Amino acid sequence: MPDKMIFFDHTSTTPLDPRVLEVMLPYFKENFGNPSSHVHSLGQIALKAVDKAREQVAALISAKPSEIIFTSGATEANNLAVKGIANANKTKGRHILISQIEHYSVMNTAMFLNSQGFETEQVPVGEDGFVKLDELEKMIREDTILISIMLSNTEIGVIEPVKQAVEIAKRKNPAVIFHTDAASSAGIIPVDVNDLGVDALTLSAHNFYGPKGAAALYLREGTKLFSLFEGGFQESGYRSGTENVPAIVGMGEAARLAKEEMPERNRKIEALGKKLWNGLAEKIEYLHFTGSSENRLPGHVSFWVEFAEGESILLFLAVKGIAAASGSACSSNLRARDEDELVGSHVLAAVGVPTDICSGSITFMLGKDSTEEEVDYVLETLPPIIQRLWSMSPSYEDMLKNKK
Amino acid sequence: MPDKMIFFDHTSTTPLDPRVLEVMLPYFKENFGNPSSHVHSLGQIALKAVDKAREQVAALISAKPSEIIFTSGATEANNLAVKGIANANKTKGRHILISQIEHYSVMNTAMFLNSQGFETEQVPVGEDGFVKLDELEKMIREDTILISIMLSNTEIGVIEPVKQAVEIAKRKNPAVIFHTDAASSAGIIPVDVNDLGVDALTLSAHNFYGPKGAAALYLREGTKLFSLFEGGFQESGYRSGTENVPAIVGMGEAARLAKEEMPERNRKIEALGKKLWNGLAEKIEYLHFTGSSENRLPGHVSFWVEFAEGESILLFLAVKGIAAASGSACSSNLRARDEDELVGSHVLAAVGVPTDICSGSITFMLGKDSTEEEVDYVLETLPPIIQRLWSMSPSYEDMLKNKK
Repeated sequence: MPDKMIFFDHTSTTPLDPRVLEVMLPYFKENFGNPSSHVHSLGQIALKAVDKAREQVAALISAKPSEIIFTSGATEANNLAVKGIANANKTKGRHILISQIEHYSVMNTAMFLNSQGFETEQVPVGEDGFVKLDELEKMIREDTILISIMLSNTEIGVIEPVKQAVEIAKRKNPAVIFHTDAASSAGIIPVDVNDLGVDALTLSAHNFYGPKGAAALYLREGTKLFSLFEGGFQESGYRSGTENVPAIVGMGEAARLAKEEMPERNRKIEALGKKLWNGLAEKIEYLHFTGSSENRLPGHVSFWVEFAEGESILLFLAVKGIAAASGSACSSNLRARDEDELVGSHVLAAVGVPTDICSGSITFMLGKDSTEEEVDYVLETLPPIIQRLWSMSPSYEDMLKNKK
Repeated sequence: MPDKMIFFDHTSTTPLDPRVLEVMLPYFKENFGNPSSHVHSLGQIALKAVDKAREQVAALISAKPSEIIFTSGATEANNLAVKGIANANKTKGRHILISQIEHYSVMNTAMFLNSQGFETEQVPVGEDGFVKLDELEKMIREDTILISIMLSNTEIGVIEPVKQAVEIAKRKNPAVIFHTDAASSAGIIPVDVNDLGVDALTLSAHNFYGPKGAAALYLREGTKLFSLFEGGFQESGYRSGTENVPAIVGMGEAARLAKEEMPERNRKIEALGKKLWNGLAEKIEYLHFTGSSENRLPGHVSFWVEFAEGESILLFLAVKGIAAASGSACSSNLRARDEDELVGSHVLAAVGVPTDICSGSITFMLGKDSTEEEVDYVLETLPPIIQRLWSMSPSYEDMLKNKK
């Protein structure tokens, strides 16, 4: 049993980098001003801090500072993008395309818009988890105004071919506005809005060792967007409300560190992730990885095991001091708060996991502070857990008999 | 010149109480979990912390914990209330009433709804700043579904007769849903949702020595509300998005401290506020207080001076180390970011300030750490500033000639 929890749940959140907290602290103390009240120096200090963070976040994704809109989180940024772009451009058309495996904050938002006179369709993904580009091409119409395809999926770890999708989209219909939810990508893997060619992109600070409560929407200059909130016209009117200065400052610093340290972080994380992947493949029978083995988030290892229930694996891992996720954090929320109605993962369904022998997947995601010892411990600890769950499962017994 | 800035700008924000920061810090460090990923202990700790804060915030306003919806700020909470209640109840009617002096996050939201098939009307206020209850009564119709009248106004300091307004509203049309923006009241003066009789109420942590990035909407059990965001169904589905755990924890602790210390804080602040008020009345000719002298926020002193421009007073005060506000923080934002188009205060216009001799008001708001020395310094510093501004104003010269 490790001294402290082994945190392989970096898809749900990441620990705040102590260096980031250090930079935030003055804005919780002496520099507590409101950027909107900047006739006096306290407000000016706050305003300058927000502007500096804007530059740092912009630099992470090769954007201009004026193209960054700070929000309270990725869910808000995704809602702002999908609703705001759709509503601002509805005179040009009402057709929206998203992938089958979007986060709920894109998926439910786009599906909600169907009640407002829009028509949202879902582009299928293959068993490898990649969006089908030929299907996408066929589905784009003259009245398609918005396409939103995520840059990476937290549940199955794949990095989507967004650059190619943008090329196809803009070729078929140059008026299409392309948004990508990069909440689990920006700050983790290189993201360049110009290389990708997207018009809008969501970033989330707490996914790259920044604080909760700060995120951003990149919006390419000239792209039309309606705001979600009315109010005091902060963030150029796109996002009213007093700025969460300490969190925004923290996001800026986390972005700066991510940009600087990314190659080094990922070299280490990828090696550890590979070790975990190979170890699991070797040690656990009837284990199936989800998502392609190529083009994945570094350190992301996701799988399911025949006749071993995902939530039970999670619970036994937790008892042994290992934090992991089953599907996305949000879907485990759904399950827990309304226990009578277990909601299956729409992502697992989309990649064709057989529902008769799979009940829930596991997602390990390593972070910049993960160690080889932790990987070794997980590789020692998980196989006996699976054995124990099998020994409790009548279906497993049946299967073994059938296989003999 | 004081060693550190005299902060009489507590309407724009308040300094974070160091005791609150202390309680928040563990959630920036070891307890960094995501409440939605709570199969493991890190998520459980975060979930419990949010639930505890919910109890503390509920206790501050005599609500049930289940009636508290955490949001990222008061602007979001006001948008959620106004849009969410209007849209969830539009089958019953489309008529909305707000006061003339609401914050932009209520006013612009309600006026925006007019483009969505609603009809928003503004209930006038008197020169004392109080909403005219007889007018309110006349304006309530059978199809009125929502009334939103603020509990206190940051620009002119008055505490509105919300309890009486609710009584009138519910008597005339029991189906009316009553929201009050208490962002500048809750945690500052006693607020009891049952005594007030409101169905929804906005609170803001950074207005009562809590952190920016956390606020709440109180929603009475059984009140229908649509969400602003779609997503992972956090906050009972009313507010999706990963909870800003440290900020929410801070809001809870700030609420606990406010409840406990409010009588003591206000005894001191009121005495200092009275001294400032009386001193200004005595020392500065042609000074006009805004808002009633009774039923005001403790320590709130607002006024304008004939032929002395508000922004100029602010600037000279800032040079002398005194932070104050001109109107609401948001309107000074409007002015500053688009300097060619000076936007007059809708609040000053509503209370009938004569625009020919008044150009901008000043708001001083004292806080729990304000001192008598600070009040004395302001009373010494302001009169020469006014004299200097007058000496620069040709209109003032004319006036003096006319008065002779």
